[in-house]
Amino acid sequence: MRASNYLFSTLRDAPTDAVVASHQLMVRAGMIRQLSKGLYTWLPTGLKVLRKVENIVREEMERAGSLEVIMPGVQPAELWQETGRWQKYGAELLRLQDRHGRDYCLGPTHEEVITDLARNELTSYKQLPMNFFQIQTKFRDEVRPRFGVMRAREFCMKDAYSFHVGEESLQETYDIMHQAYCNVFDRIGLDYRPVLADTGSIGGAYSHEFHVLAESGEDDIAFSDTSDFAANVELAEAVCLKSKADAPTQELAEVLTPDCKTIQQVAEFLKLDVTKTVKTMLVKGLDDNEQATIVALVLRGDHNINELKVEKINGIVSPFEFADEADIINKIGCAPGSIGPKDLKEKGIQVIADRSAAIMSDFCAGANKDDYHFTGLNWERDCPDFETADLRNVVEGDPSPDGKGTIVIKRGIEVGHIFQLGQQYAEALKATVLDENGKAKVMHMGCYGIGVSRIVAAAIEQNFDDKGILWPANITPFDVVIVAMNYDKSEAVRDECDRLYTELKAKGLDVLLDDRKERPGVKFADCELIGIPHRLVVGDKGLANGTLEYKNRTQGENEDVAIEDAVDFIVAKK
Amino acid sequence: MRASNYLFSTLRDAPTDAVVASHQLMVRAGMIRQLSKGLYTWLPTGLKVLRKVENIVREEMERAGSLEVIMPGVQPAELWQETGRWQKYGAELLRLQDRHGRDYCLGPTHEEVITDLARNELTSYKQLPMNFFQIQTKFRDEVRPRFGVMRAREFCMKDAYSFHVGEESLQETYDIMHQAYCNVFDRIGLDYRPVLADTGSIGGAYSHEFHVLAESGEDDIAFSDTSDFAANVELAEAVCLKSKADAPTQELAEVLTPDCKTIQQVAEFLKLDVTKTVKTMLVKGLDDNEQATIVALVLRGDHNINELKVEKINGIVSPFEFADEADIINKIGCAPGSIGPKDLKEKGIQVIADRSAAIMSDFCAGANKDDYHFTGLNWERDCPDFETADLRNVVEGDPSPDGKGTIVIKRGIEVGHIFQLGQQYAEALKATVLDENGKAKVMHMGCYGIGVSRIVAAAIEQNFDDKGILWPANITPFDVVIVAMNYDKSEAVRDECDRLYTELKAKGLDVLLDDRKERPGVKFADCELIGIPHRLVVGDKGLANGTLEYKNRTQGENEDVAIEDAVDFIVAKK
Repeated sequence: MRASNYLFSTLRDAPTDAVVASHQLMVRAGMIRQLSKGLYTWLPTGLKVLRKVENIVREEMERAGSLEVIMPGVQPAELWQETGRWQKYGAELLRLQDRHGRDYCLGPTHEEVITDLARNELTSYKQLPMNFFQIQTKFRDEVRPRFGVMRAREFCMKDAYSFHVGEESLQETYDIMHQAYCNVFDRIGLDYRPVLADTGSIGGAYSHEFHVLAESGEDDIAFSDTSDFAANVELAEAVCLKSKADAPTQELAEVLTPDCKTIQQVAEFLKLDVTKTVKTMLVKGLDDNEQATIVALVLRGDHNINELKVEKINGIVSPFEFADEADIINKIGCAPGSIGPKDLKEKGIQVIADRSAAIMSDFCAGANKDDYHFTGLNWERDCPDFETADLRNVVEGDPSPDGKGTIVIKRGIEVGHIFQLGQQYAEALKATVLDENGKAKVMHMGCYGIGVSRIVAAAIEQNFDDKGILWPANITPFDVVIVAMNYDKSEAVRDECDRLYTELKAKGLDVLLDDRKERPGVKFADCELIGIPHRLVVGDKGLANGTLEYKNRTQGENEDVAIEDAVDFIVAKK
Repeated sequence: MRASNYLFSTLRDAPTDAVVASHQLMVRAGMIRQLSKGLYTWLPTGLKVLRKVENIVREEMERAGSLEVIMPGVQPAELWQETGRWQKYGAELLRLQDRHGRDYCLGPTHEEVITDLARNELTSYKQLPMNFFQIQTKFRDEVRPRFGVMRAREFCMKDAYSFHVGEESLQETYDIMHQAYCNVFDRIGLDYRPVLADTGSIGGAYSHEFHVLAESGEDDIAFSDTSDFAANVELAEAVCLKSKADAPTQELAEVLTPDCKTIQQVAEFLKLDVTKTVKTMLVKGLDDNEQATIVALVLRGDHNINELKVEKINGIVSPFEFADEADIINKIGCAPGSIGPKDLKEKGIQVIADRSAAIMSDFCAGANKDDYHFTGLNWERDCPDFETADLRNVVEGDPSPDGKGTIVIKRGIEVGHIFQLGQQYAEALKATVLDENGKAKVMHMGCYGIGVSRIVAAAIEQNFDDKGILWPANITPFDVVIVAMNYDKSEAVRDECDRLYTELKAKGLDVLLDDRKERPGVKFADCELIGIPHRLVVGDKGLANGTLEYKNRTQGENEDVAIEDAVDFIVAKK
């Protein structure tokens, strides 16, 4: 590409609403322009990157045996009514009517459409497994579009859907997709983690998110510092290396803790480390006879409750809801700030201690009496009637649940999600095939998404400096820029630039020849902002010595390269 | 691709609503499936063809210097309000509201969005000319979607828009686009014509349509049997080789023509050839003082009026509207069936004769008296006060307007349209650049569309037989199919198929290995229906003789090819 025929549209300043680096840099580098809230035009530089990402995704999906299709973006309401999502899906689903007043939506996802296709086209177990993908513009009417293309309303997504006669086949394809996703993100050159996203829900749904690690990420990812383990913080199991509390060394004592409303205030007042205290939360639950009751959840003072985990304890606390203060005072005789586990069972309140709380000894807890706490409390000796469960969010330093290493928590940007859907959609839409015995079987399904446009932004979040973007080699808009000094005036420069341009292109490289009548500083700044990895400067002075000036975008110094070696030199770098 | 992992979805019968060959064959060949009226899913076989067309279009656009971008499909109403099209554009524009009640439309075309981009990004004449294209899903809420993807509501389109400082630059890019379009359709292998679509309207708008010739086309194209001339029938100039009428040989006679309401009835009654008669139509018009008047349009009896041409005669008859019968009887004294050009001028009615009517002699026309016609009428002698203009549609046999050859009329499918927009959109949206003197100039624009998905259907309309599709080589879903006989049972067959498959793929060919457990007849029928150009059959019998069986999709007989030559043989065919 000759710069004189190209649209740069680089900007010195980012728009004021751009708060993350990728949004700022994509606008400044002339990659995108906002048309309307959450709607972006991809300019040539941006689209070149997007296409490279798209091609890598396509190649890996094809290699994994998925067949490309393309489904309509506008979907009839009837299918969504069949699965019940027309009612359930919130305002993110953009509903519209055609000229005849018929209801449609702009597809945010395509489970309904693909399952409708599958029920019509797949009739026999012999055709399975079958895996379809498409790379398509999706629309989600985000309530608060933000971060540029990271959370836009219209975006490019790869979505895939697989169909199976049974769970085993689904697991096989799921594993193949897991590997294909790793291949995609490896080839793009991202620092990412496949993250366990859900394991526990009934029906065996199973899912992984793929997160690019970056400070601007919206999700907290817990992962092991030594193994492959990674999970959403909310879903990571909090394990405890100790299985039993130490023997008591202190006597139980009731102490006055006036005006201490929080566990931090209690710890400070008593000059205790907060890890030597527990907090007790009372929530609404059901007893063995399914009657409304109160359940006490006990956590170490510095830990945070995980509502998702609580809701999974045999369903006794679901949905998660705090007990009413009046009920508490009525049943226990004190306000919530002074609750503790001792003697609650006698008051008809079940006690569930988090694993990390259950192995504490000589600890401090509320005395179930306003303005009083116990110190030297010990489970077995003082309140033996309790159960243990995983109730809290993991924190950095926790042991990794796979037994290898320690938990580290980082922020992640979700760029992929693979999911074992099971039979939910196939059942709703009656998508069956005949099995070996000629019996109709509801198909099992998996679905697999990649946020193609989001990857572009995520790659920038991981790779930039104060001058601009630092593209990973496989998704750079241009592999190399030839900066011409006085292209219009010097024939020697012109000839050498044209030769280099032609020869580098012939080697399959994406080459930008900056033949503009601009100052060198402007040209250098533009290609640094855009993030082109390799730069060759062609000027009369160098040519007189038989050299060109090379600079790598990430490494420091300029380097002279002999004219005759330049093409091979660049090809070797790529 | 191995057929055992592929989705064929071939059908014996087409759906009943499929009336054109391409629609029938695309459904039967498993290329598309209808999701809802005018909304289609592209299955793997269809998408492979679509992508090949798309890639050819992209390559030629890039080669012509156009820069690829991608604009949002959902467009804010404000921009359409700025150009006035929000009100003017009919029900084909699908209007919708987002969750906040703001108005948007689903883009049927992108003049507004690209001009908005241009006014923000293009500031200097130095950046021009600039040409942007995108390949994108468009939506038009057709009142009657039909012919499968030929006239769908959602479809794939390449649209391009160019920006210029003046008309000359616009014409240059227009010519480049014209050539690029020819390159596209040549490479795809279509029989097409660039067709003059409009020349006359004020403001110098200038446009060509590109039509694929096919009987199922919705447009009539007039073109020369010897030159490059081609135009929409409505726009082709009707020329007359004779410049003057012959001298009169008959006396003027008034004859009774009872109950003859049409010119055909008159000709039959008087035993005259219809080409010796004229018909006279009275339409509403304006006189020199812009007062409402009646204008008489005279055509040869066998010719048809062209309203578009009539409306272009100095604007005296625009819009085209027939005069009221009461006015006619009042002014002339007879009903419309007996009107003729003689003595109309005296009644204040301007007479305009079509060029082909103006050179007639001794002809028959209405006598402006109920149930009477004249015979032996001659212009100069009997009604000299008239003007001449081009008023009619061309017919086959007319001389070509470029002076070369004779007009032939065929049906065409519009697959491309290039248009000189002028300053219309740039003016409405105030899209200016600074010229050499630092003055703001409104940009000139061109726009250039290709119906990517429609091309797939048009290619089939031109290329099919009773067995199925006959793909042009560059857009076939597969270049070659290897039909394996007993792939599961014969190791020799399996080995040879796998070898051929690997080697042909390595040569860059798109190969289908039909390894299914189906009868040979089923496999042959499928690949003939899908239209794969080359077929190799691998069976134990042939292998024993060291041969494979080759068949070309379009040419008759099977042919034995030595195993060792097979790869080169196929590569040479491609």
